Amino acid sequence: MELPSKFLQNAVEQFSTLPGVGQKSALRLVLHLLRKNNDELNDFVASLDQLKNNVRFCKKCGNITDDELCGICLNSKRNHNCICVVEDLRDIMAIENTGTYNGAYHVLGGHISPMEGVGPGDLNIDTLIKRAQTQCDEVILALSTTMEGDTTNFYLYKKLKGCDVKITTIARGVAIGDALEYTDEVTLGRSIANRTSFESSLNRM
Amino acid sequence: MELPSKFLQNAVEQFSTLPGVGQKSALRLVLHLLRKNNDELNDFVASLDQLKNNVRFCKKCGNITDDELCGICLNSKRNHNCICVVEDLRDIMAIENTGTYNGAYHVLGGHISPMEGVGPGDLNIDTLIKRAQTQCDEVILALSTTMEGDTTNFYLYKKLKGCDVKITTIARGVAIGDALEYTDEVTLGRSIANRTSFESSLNRM
Repeated sequence: MELPSKFLQNAVEQFSTLPGVGQKSALRLVLHLLRKNNDELNDFVASLDQLKNNVRFCKKCGNITDDELCGICLNSKRNHNCICVVEDLRDIMAIENTGTYNGAYHVLGGHISPMEGVGPGDLNIDTLIKRAQTQCDEVILALSTTMEGDTTNFYLYKKLKGCDVKITTIARGVAIGDALEYTDEVTLGRSIANRTSFESSLNRM
Repeated sequence: MELPSKFLQNAVEQFSTLPGVGQKSALRLVLHLLRKNNDELNDFVASLDQLKNNVRFCKKCGNITDDELCGICLNSKRNHNCICVVEDLRDIMAIENTGTYNGAYHVLGGHISPMEGVGPGDLNIDTLIKRAQTQCDEVILALSTTMEGDTTNFYLYKKLKGCDVKITTIARGVAIGDALEYTDEVTLGRSIANRTSFESSLNRM
């Protein structure tokens, strides 16, 4: 796509590095920014500048925070001996919204993906192992059910096997509200193999 | 959506002012930016800074350019007595891609839309009238076929009526490749009312 201004071209190229944003959408976003008045555009740029300079990662769990430790790690009412391993902040928000978990988290910052050039060294795995070795009863692996998520799960399992912790993973099965006939075979097979006592499901209704 | 960092919250709010970006997509984009290394994030912010400080609008037609006049206005091989009125740069790119137009353009910078708070005073209409009054044979209205586009077309028509120029609009009709049975009544009705000689269509095949 040839644009009449090299500065515009540059901004469009930067925007099209964002996930789900192609060249056309990037141009749409940049043209919208150009239509903003000067103050609004300044605010936009300043917000990114501040993000770059001020946002920190929690020293303990890797979550995003403005301080040294995040709110969850500082909360004394939570069970810090149970660590739920997630990919990023959005997973924490999703789990927190369920209101069913009261433990701590550990944010990996992604998943192992050779295709995207992300190896185990790029993730917060060493700090997880250190946390698992000291004061920890259970590590819950709560990564996405994709191939990359499963690879990462298995890598973490191998690494954590040496530590004296219970390693669990979130249940896979038929989602609430789903019809059996439309569920894929792998999920349905897994939900039968991992069936639970009916009485325990009653307690959760 | 409550986020653990006010700087993150601020950046997400800024991103969600962009068209088609909701709070969830904005968070996704900002988290992606945070995963970039420092140099990459600096490049991103710098591209917006440069955009803000260096991009200019062509003094004649309102197109985006790095100089005083855009490449199309400077091109002496084009017919500058024919002005095609469009909403923004993307429309120029679309028309240029057809390879069928050799005149000049005039970029309005949007359309009249009381709902979005855009009135005639917010668009480059005065400069268009001035151009139409001096050295101009034809003004082609090429705005979107939406209600806002039609309103703007009508407003421009009223304003341009006093000038000694031919006012035309791009043809509306059944798109090439479309089946008649799936075409809406308004478009089909318009295509019958504005039928053209078969011979003239042969010349364009």
